[in-house]
Amino acid sequence: MKLIEHAREHQIICTSASILGWDQETYMPNKASEFRAEQLSWLSARAHELSTSQAWREAIEAAEKLELHDDPRMRANVNEMRRRFDQAAKLPVALVSEITKTSSLAKRAWIEARQANDFAAFAPHLQKLIDLSKQKAEYWGYESELYDSLLDCHERGASTAQVSLLFDQLRQPLSALAKEAAEKSALSGLQLPAGPYPIDKQQQLNEAVARDIGYDFGAGRIDTTAHPFCTTLGPHDIRMTTRYDQDDFTSSLFGVLHEAGHGMYEQGLPDANPGMADADAVSLGIHESQSRLWENHVGRSRGFWEKWYPLASSLFPQLKQLSLDEFLVALNQAKFSFIRVGADEATYDLHILLRFDLERRIFRNQLIVADLPQAWNELFHELFGINPPDYQNGCLQDIHWSMGAFGYFPTYTLGNLNAAQLFHAAKKDATIASGIASANYGALLTWLRQNIHQHGAIFDPAELMKKATGEVQDPKYHLAHLKARYVD
Amino acid sequence: MKLIEHAREHQIICTSASILGWDQETYMPNKASEFRAEQLSWLSARAHELSTSQAWREAIEAAEKLELHDDPRMRANVNEMRRRFDQAAKLPVALVSEITKTSSLAKRAWIEARQANDFAAFAPHLQKLIDLSKQKAEYWGYESELYDSLLDCHERGASTAQVSLLFDQLRQPLSALAKEAAEKSALSGLQLPAGPYPIDKQQQLNEAVARDIGYDFGAGRIDTTAHPFCTTLGPHDIRMTTRYDQDDFTSSLFGVLHEAGHGMYEQGLPDANPGMADADAVSLGIHESQSRLWENHVGRSRGFWEKWYPLASSLFPQLKQLSLDEFLVALNQAKFSFIRVGADEATYDLHILLRFDLERRIFRNQLIVADLPQAWNELFHELFGINPPDYQNGCLQDIHWSMGAFGYFPTYTLGNLNAAQLFHAAKKDATIASGIASANYGALLTWLRQNIHQHGAIFDPAELMKKATGEVQDPKYHLAHLKARYVD
Repeated sequence: MKLIEHAREHQIICTSASILGWDQETYMPNKASEFRAEQLSWLSARAHELSTSQAWREAIEAAEKLELHDDPRMRANVNEMRRRFDQAAKLPVALVSEITKTSSLAKRAWIEARQANDFAAFAPHLQKLIDLSKQKAEYWGYESELYDSLLDCHERGASTAQVSLLFDQLRQPLSALAKEAAEKSALSGLQLPAGPYPIDKQQQLNEAVARDIGYDFGAGRIDTTAHPFCTTLGPHDIRMTTRYDQDDFTSSLFGVLHEAGHGMYEQGLPDANPGMADADAVSLGIHESQSRLWENHVGRSRGFWEKWYPLASSLFPQLKQLSLDEFLVALNQAKFSFIRVGADEATYDLHILLRFDLERRIFRNQLIVADLPQAWNELFHELFGINPPDYQNGCLQDIHWSMGAFGYFPTYTLGNLNAAQLFHAAKKDATIASGIASANYGALLTWLRQNIHQHGAIFDPAELMKKATGEVQDPKYHLAHLKARYVD
Repeated sequence: MKLIEHAREHQIICTSASILGWDQETYMPNKASEFRAEQLSWLSARAHELSTSQAWREAIEAAEKLELHDDPRMRANVNEMRRRFDQAAKLPVALVSEITKTSSLAKRAWIEARQANDFAAFAPHLQKLIDLSKQKAEYWGYESELYDSLLDCHERGASTAQVSLLFDQLRQPLSALAKEAAEKSALSGLQLPAGPYPIDKQQQLNEAVARDIGYDFGAGRIDTTAHPFCTTLGPHDIRMTTRYDQDDFTSSLFGVLHEAGHGMYEQGLPDANPGMADADAVSLGIHESQSRLWENHVGRSRGFWEKWYPLASSLFPQLKQLSLDEFLVALNQAKFSFIRVGADEATYDLHILLRFDLERRIFRNQLIVADLPQAWNELFHELFGINPPDYQNGCLQDIHWSMGAFGYFPTYTLGNLNAAQLFHAAKKDATIASGIASANYGALLTWLRQNIHQHGAIFDPAELMKKATGEVQDPKYHLAHLKARYVD
């Protein structure tokens, strides 16, 4: 099928760019950056050219005419390729390049504005990106409100109404739970022993753990970067990165568990037809469910540490000061804090509820950019009971808006909800449950492969969740998980 | 100028492929190799497509019509781009792809044949590659004999007659000198103290040395591979690799000095117009002159070790068993041996004279493939006085022929001759000479930048040597250097 050939070529180009991008973040010498930008831009132009070409359109049309009644998977594949093509084709070239240019300038402006704690310097860039996103959403179209279209672009099929419903169910119980957890944590007074935790020892532990939970080092590796990420360089080349803190070994370890979750998802995607929808992750909310499941449900559990605490204590002898019970309490401390990326499990989603609320108001024209800092701080105080001391700890902390990524934040909490629901569903199988209890995750990974990974982007995330767990998405599993971990 | 744009795009594609190639040799996980081959082949097809396109042809024609009287450099640039285009255009597409396919099979066959010590298994592949090379040479054309054309492809403007003349002048005195050097070395009985030489200490020394001689780590790095190489990933991204032997720190160090020589040449090429001839190295013989100059003339000299022996001895305390004088004798031992890549300076070129002689006979139809092993062994005995025990130590040792690279070997000795002649010429400047004596190489590197690097591929190698040294290429400098080092 011609479409499969085109998709493969497109994937060849995109993953070649990923190799250049990975190198840029890991090993590239600094004077290479200017030409590297040219190399990346050439590749990205070729990918764009191909995926919007007449040949591609004709290949989709030809595929649509094929008799595929007895191959529903290929039919779904073709439908999703058509949907993506149409989405891309709806945007005028001039708008796409305007967005690229504006984000590039905005990103630099954001870095400087954050450093200078100067929201006003960033505001015009933010305004322009919001305006461009509105235009984009209009071209794409939407059912009820403009923000639907921005959400859908990160979480296929999600609507503002549906996400609002989920988040509304979450808000009250989560606020209460976070408050109780924070109070309990403050009372315990337990914390991790002081460093140093030597980096080579951290690497040894991280690698052993990643290998043990099922990350395939024959098709991946771990390197060091300023910001951890996971990237796909080919169907069997899924690499992750982490960063090291000499004073806290859990920072790199949970980074690795998180990225390994992303990585195992990508390693589990079907490899027959690279570039086709069923070889591709379906959404950010599903991707994040995989990373959060391994990071939090597995990595912060008692069963996990019963297995790994002995090795950790032999690598880092200062851990012997704490019993396993004390260590687990120290590990799972809740505290209201200003920065999302540093937040614990109990308070994390409050950061997302805040951002979702503000974005929704912005795109409903209920909030203007000039009023954003005040709105942020008011809502922050309402949710967290504390006041951000400055913009760096407030509305300038995240990179996402500077990239024009609106509708992205909600997928973090969707990922948390999905993770809890999937973990709960998987544990209904006795073999999986007993494996988890003894920190043997083979059966769990197999379940994820069968219920999530193998489907690629064939089903909408909500449908995929229903098929995997037998239920519609429901925040109760996440709440129950947090309650069990922090309060009970 | 359109030609400059096309050349830049071509360089963007080729260097992107180099990034993928570098990654393949350094960090790529093993399961990625199959898809990596597809990524590389896509890039290489795009580069080929562009450089043989009608648009490229028209850009050259347009450039040729420009008034460039007052810009002789750009004129030379355009001429060389025209020459390359014509050379590529002369070969039928079918022949090029036949050569690619045949080499790919031959390389695998060579690996197996060498392992099994089975020349007969490799012979049909070699025969086919020779036949294809003859066809290629006929398409390219030549002045006096077919081998001219194969030489020219690695060493622009070189002819069989001219190389023969140089090598004939070399053969007798070199044989005598190598014999004397080997006898003297055997008598000294000195060798490097036993290991271990810890790899992290070797890395520390190598990096300090590379930085000190002028390799720019802002535009490069050192990694570890099975076979050392240097590769250009962009105008300011020239990376080298080396390999480590715990029992011999000089192996990685001289690898680094050699590759740093290649690397500093590439780092010194003009960066204004990537992909144009003046941003490109001119030939293998000039490239090798740079690597050999730093590896041998600099790296094996007394002045160099007066500076670096203290650090080496503090990193590797066993070196304190040897005085600096003893160390230098141990470092510069001559011995007749079977393997080219392991040969010392005194005997190295004999390996090349042998290969040149055999290649020339093959392409004059004076030697058939079936007789090659015997011819190799006879000539080897004549030159080295010893008999190769098997094909692995004889005619199956090198990868070059399996890649269809005939006319390549002579450039190694041309590089040695050029290195000696350049080093001699540079030292006529008192500042450079005194710098070299005290192991401060800034003035030497500046001289190489001005006399070699900045010219890119503007002049033929022979012309470039004449401009740089004031003389035609002459083996006497190399012989004098070897005599001084090994015999006097």
